[in-house]
Amino acid sequence: MWQLYQFPLCPFSRKVRLLLGEKGVGYEPVRESPWQRRDEFLDLNPTGQVPVMVDSERGVTLIDSSVICEFFEETVTKSPMLNGTAPDRAEIRRLVIWFDTYFYRDITAPLLNERMLKRLVYRQAPDGQALRGAMKAAVEYLDYIDYLLDHRTWLAGPMMSLADLAAAAQISVADYLGGIDWKSHEQAKRWYIGMKSRPSFRNLLTERMDGIAPPADYEKLDL
Amino acid sequence: MWQLYQFPLCPFSRKVRLLLGEKGVGYEPVRESPWQRRDEFLDLNPTGQVPVMVDSERGVTLIDSSVICEFFEETVTKSPMLNGTAPDRAEIRRLVIWFDTYFYRDITAPLLNERMLKRLVYRQAPDGQALRGAMKAAVEYLDYIDYLLDHRTWLAGPMMSLADLAAAAQISVADYLGGIDWKSHEQAKRWYIGMKSRPSFRNLLTERMDGIAPPADYEKLDL
Ligand SMILES: N[C@@H](CCC(=O)N[C@@H](CS)C(=O)NCC(=O)O)C(=O)O
Ligand SMILES: N[C@@H](CCC(=O)N[C@@H](CS)C(=O)NCC(=O)O)C(=O)O
Repeated sequence: MWQLYQFPLCPFSRKVRLLLGEKGVGYEPVRESPWQRRDEFLDLNPTGQVPVMVDSERGVTLIDSSVICEFFEETVTKSPMLNGTAPDRAEIRRLVIWFDTYFYRDITAPLLNERMLKRLVYRQAPDGQALRGAMKAAVEYLDYIDYLLDHRTWLAGPMMSLADLAAAAQISVADYLGGIDWKSHEQAKRWYIGMKSRPSFRNLLTERMDGIAPPADYEKLDL
Repeated sequence: MWQLYQFPLCPFSRKVRLLLGEKGVGYEPVRESPWQRRDEFLDLNPTGQVPVMVDSERGVTLIDSSVICEFFEETVTKSPMLNGTAPDRAEIRRLVIWFDTYFYRDITAPLLNERMLKRLVYRQAPDGQALRGAMKAAVEYLDYIDYLLDHRTWLAGPMMSLADLAAAAQISVADYLGGIDWKSHEQAKRWYIGMKSRPSFRNLLTERMDGIAPPADYEKLDL
């Protein structure tokens, strides 16, 4: 049985969980708070980051969400998420990296820092300017999603792909932390409601992070 | 014909060039200085980063070194660089990400900033403390390479892989900028000389960055 080291608001763990859900791979979630820098976890992954997956029977350890996603894409044929020709796959991977790197850097990471780490770890008040910066950046990223959906059914093309899972994972954490305003982003909103209604997503949305409540319509399908 | 947008000291472009060299893929290098933020280049890649590859005849644009490497690994069977079982491939990808992220963050990026950007762009003197920090970090990374080579012929296992190319690419830029001291790293040094002697590497080593000279033994095979 696979174990997945993660915490509920880690967007990279969410991307992995969406992929495992779509592919029907069973796993046991193991709660890991990387800011505690537990020795046993550092032995598993010297960088100290989640997600990590371990299959102790087979002696396999998978480190980094992109390594995990490529592994299950290679080994589980159900619901392929890197579909199409080599250029199609390049476009999917480009968008995954874009959300994992830039959406995370500009939006998810500052929100996690201000609204989660400062509350749970540093016991500080959030910095209003950092929060406003993240929310302003979110508008630009939603504009880009609208633009992609002008030409495409899903973010990377005619089929749902890992790009949709990566984007939805980041957005869902930002949304939990009050960073997303859907106003004047009809296309992006409709796409996100489609993502939210998938069984792989429903489980994630019911989880809560200790002491941090999401907005009222976080789980709702009629935004 | 593929075009590769890059500059001589970009470690991610070097990783791509080593892969293309090993696989025998022809390409035309196009000099791009991303700090100039050229409009035409930003149209090609809105993040403004190199490497980018373009095949204008087929209308294919590949953005990000990992997207480019996966693309050529999928489309060119010669000299596979993601060899072995799914867990073997996961270990190769883990190490590639590790060098691309952490070696770059701790060593290559500060060296590029202090010794290249400050000279060519900001016209400032390098910060000695930042340089010493990078050189100290390099010792730890060489220790880890020694450790890997205690158990393995190549960094990720019994065969040369993308992990070796990623590591050699980062190290070669750090070495160009005077950040590598091979003292008491015999195993890592022997591995690196092996990498340097490959035809795919020889071309790279003869290139120079305007106004910045590498150390005397940068190209040498008898360190
Ligand atoms: N590139 C990694 C990024 C993972 C990551 O940034 N994880 C964060 C939590 S969202 C973490 O563990 N941070 C703790 C730390 O960096 O010490 C991946 O895709 O898995
Ligand atoms: N994840 C990217 C990183 C590329 C990268 O950092 N490129 C640097 C040059 S070494 C760059 O273009 N920097 C300019 C900038 O970020 O504006 C890749 O693997 O291709």
